[in-house]
Amino acid sequence: MTGQFKIKKVFGGVCAPKGFRAAGLHCGIRGTSDKKDLALIVSDVRASAAAVYTTNKVKGAPLTVTKNHISDGYAQAVICNSGNANTCNADGIEIAEAMSALASDVTHVDSSDIIIGSTGVIGEPLSIAPIRSKISELAEALSYDGSSDAAEAIMTTDTVKKEASFEIELSGKPVRLGGIAKGSGMIHPNMATMLVFLTTDAAISPAMLQKALSADIPETFNMISVDGDTSTNDTVAIMANGLAGNPEITGEGEDYDTFLAALHELMSDLCRRIAADGEGASKLLTCILTGAADHETARKVAKTVICSSLVKAAMYGGDANWGRVLCAIGYSPAEVDVTKVEVGFRSTGGLVYVCRDGAGIPFSEEEAAKVLDAGEIEILIDLHDGNESATAWGCDLTHEYVSINADYRT
Amino acid sequence: MTGQFKIKKVFGGVCAPKGFRAAGLHCGIRGTSDKKDLALIVSDVRASAAAVYTTNKVKGAPLTVTKNHISDGYAQAVICNSGNANTCNADGIEIAEAMSALASDVTHVDSSDIIIGSTGVIGEPLSIAPIRSKISELAEALSYDGSSDAAEAIMTTDTVKKEASFEIELSGKPVRLGGIAKGSGMIHPNMATMLVFLTTDAAISPAMLQKALSADIPETFNMISVDGDTSTNDTVAIMANGLAGNPEITGEGEDYDTFLAALHELMSDLCRRIAADGEGASKLLTCILTGAADHETARKVAKTVICSSLVKAAMYGGDANWGRVLCAIGYSPAEVDVTKVEVGFRSTGGLVYVCRDGAGIPFSEEEAAKVLDAGEIEILIDLHDGNESATAWGCDLTHEYVSINADYRT
Repeated sequence: MTGQFKIKKVFGGVCAPKGFRAAGLHCGIRGTSDKKDLALIVSDVRASAAAVYTTNKVKGAPLTVTKNHISDGYAQAVICNSGNANTCNADGIEIAEAMSALASDVTHVDSSDIIIGSTGVIGEPLSIAPIRSKISELAEALSYDGSSDAAEAIMTTDTVKKEASFEIELSGKPVRLGGIAKGSGMIHPNMATMLVFLTTDAAISPAMLQKALSADIPETFNMISVDGDTSTNDTVAIMANGLAGNPEITGEGEDYDTFLAALHELMSDLCRRIAADGEGASKLLTCILTGAADHETARKVAKTVICSSLVKAAMYGGDANWGRVLCAIGYSPAEVDVTKVEVGFRSTGGLVYVCRDGAGIPFSEEEAAKVLDAGEIEILIDLHDGNESATAWGCDLTHEYVSINADYRT
Repeated sequence: MTGQFKIKKVFGGVCAPKGFRAAGLHCGIRGTSDKKDLALIVSDVRASAAAVYTTNKVKGAPLTVTKNHISDGYAQAVICNSGNANTCNADGIEIAEAMSALASDVTHVDSSDIIIGSTGVIGEPLSIAPIRSKISELAEALSYDGSSDAAEAIMTTDTVKKEASFEIELSGKPVRLGGIAKGSGMIHPNMATMLVFLTTDAAISPAMLQKALSADIPETFNMISVDGDTSTNDTVAIMANGLAGNPEITGEGEDYDTFLAALHELMSDLCRRIAADGEGASKLLTCILTGAADHETARKVAKTVICSSLVKAAMYGGDANWGRVLCAIGYSPAEVDVTKVEVGFRSTGGLVYVCRDGAGIPFSEEEAAKVLDAGEIEILIDLHDGNESATAWGCDLTHEYVSINADYRT
């Protein structure tokens, strides 16, 4: 998909595109920590907006308010806190609207053009007081290179900030896309994942922006899994402010295709970062599925393998236990002729094939150990049944994952 | 279900019913261990037989052979090894048939009346040599109180033997049912679970035996989960040899209902034992779901909660993180009005309610900690939406689970 267009990596995250400022600071939502917990992103002008949300029937209050705010296809700012999900609280909607009103006061963006995000503990009331006390300071901190502070402020159990940005050309005009993401546990998206805020200076209509976002979600954020738990607050939102000056994209065509390819590159990049930073993860796992009869089969099998606790634990231990890969393929919700399946492992440590025609083949345990000792492992599966492919991202299952989640609230 | 009938707990496992002998010994399938790895169960007379198997598309060779052997509705013996699953091997069928032939030689049971089971590593050829060398010794060891040795011989990562047996009356005749089970990892049954061998001296036709078994599987073995991985070798098989002398059950009626109730009691008992001994488990979790609009909803929600890695890790840490329970209810594949949901935790340490109408309620963290400190925890969920209920069994997610599975083969 990316081979046909020139997609250039650039720096700057959500501030890489023209006309976006961002900031992040510590306001004190969780008494016990002094980490940054409040982020603000503002576009200089009103922007086309699109979003996708969790399919969990329990939805965080910020999602309800955001959905309402961007129902007209436009937005201009994002306010997001970490440390509290503002979910399953009686006053949730009220608090989310209050966050939006405070952001509106200091940015002069209409409150109905503000996207709200919250992430953290479910079911504990979110106090507006710390947010109110620091909102002016936050607005004063807004800057055209503030992406990194915002990325830090939306982290919870994440161990690294997640930012990415790319540049393309649309009808001869340079156009940029950028994003920040958070997500480490409760990662098993279905329609969206955790919190991802994307920006672009492309001129594109709200309808085409939503179309592009929705088209690529199944190939990117819906293909990662850390622990099989679909969060209540998953949101991917994008703002396109048009400041790049390209002819507005209002239908399909070359510019739309280029934009979609760049969006795919940006979202795939953030997916890898989220999976690699899965709670407790020591290794990034990428399942590359080829030879499927149809695309749905490719997606289902790749996702099932990446979700298997036993495969994840084996990768942690550097154990080339391909039987568990085959077992997961077998219980995936897709039609697969298991007697044709080929499995291999690849990393900077080399490439080793362990299974052909659904049965084990002799391989050197020593070589396999070298392959699986790496920090990024590719699980290669060829179904030898067609030409469709898919990629899924996950991470290993470690002692640290258990430690983090056995004692999250305290 | 069990209240209406008198179901008495008795000792003896698979040998509790009349006319069943069993044995187990170490034959040396895995060079590195001296644990018992070969089991034999024999009925004095030919018995009605029924079985259910995994839905995994990758199926162990023993399942194929067993299916074939009991297709006529009858069986008389079980041979089962641990240490190697005889799955994904080119010569799998041949080896399973050879096991059956060896058992036939020493028991004089027709080879086509033998049920074969194998459990352990997938994809490593199973050598028939150690089985051949010890089969005579195994037959000589058969005894009417050998259930415990057989239960031990089918264990893999299990830490305790799993046996149960019950007595009922059918038309005035005392009738017994017994069983042994193994299962600790790769436990997420769909139609069946790991290896469970049941015996009864009831007289019941093959058709009614299969009907009873199939009727209760969705309520018992399909409601447990240790790690979300559906095994390739799951099998539940039952033999009914008729030696109790009750009038043969050939259709529905009071005797069938009593038999079904006793079978439910036996299978539930084994379910609890399997879940409590989940790999690395320190706590048995029972999710008791009430107030569902329909039975399918009850089953789906209970199973989803018991499968959540985050709920399991929270229970390990004794953390009353009910938000994760609500989150799992929210992503379960069922229609639920989350604003009506009530959640509580119960154990020998007491009872604490933490959520009503889908929102948090004040509770004492100290009391909650006491409840969650117990070795058996009940997660009580009332959907307040009807009268249907279901129970699911699972275990906590611990450091030990990761240790076991990071290094299974070595």
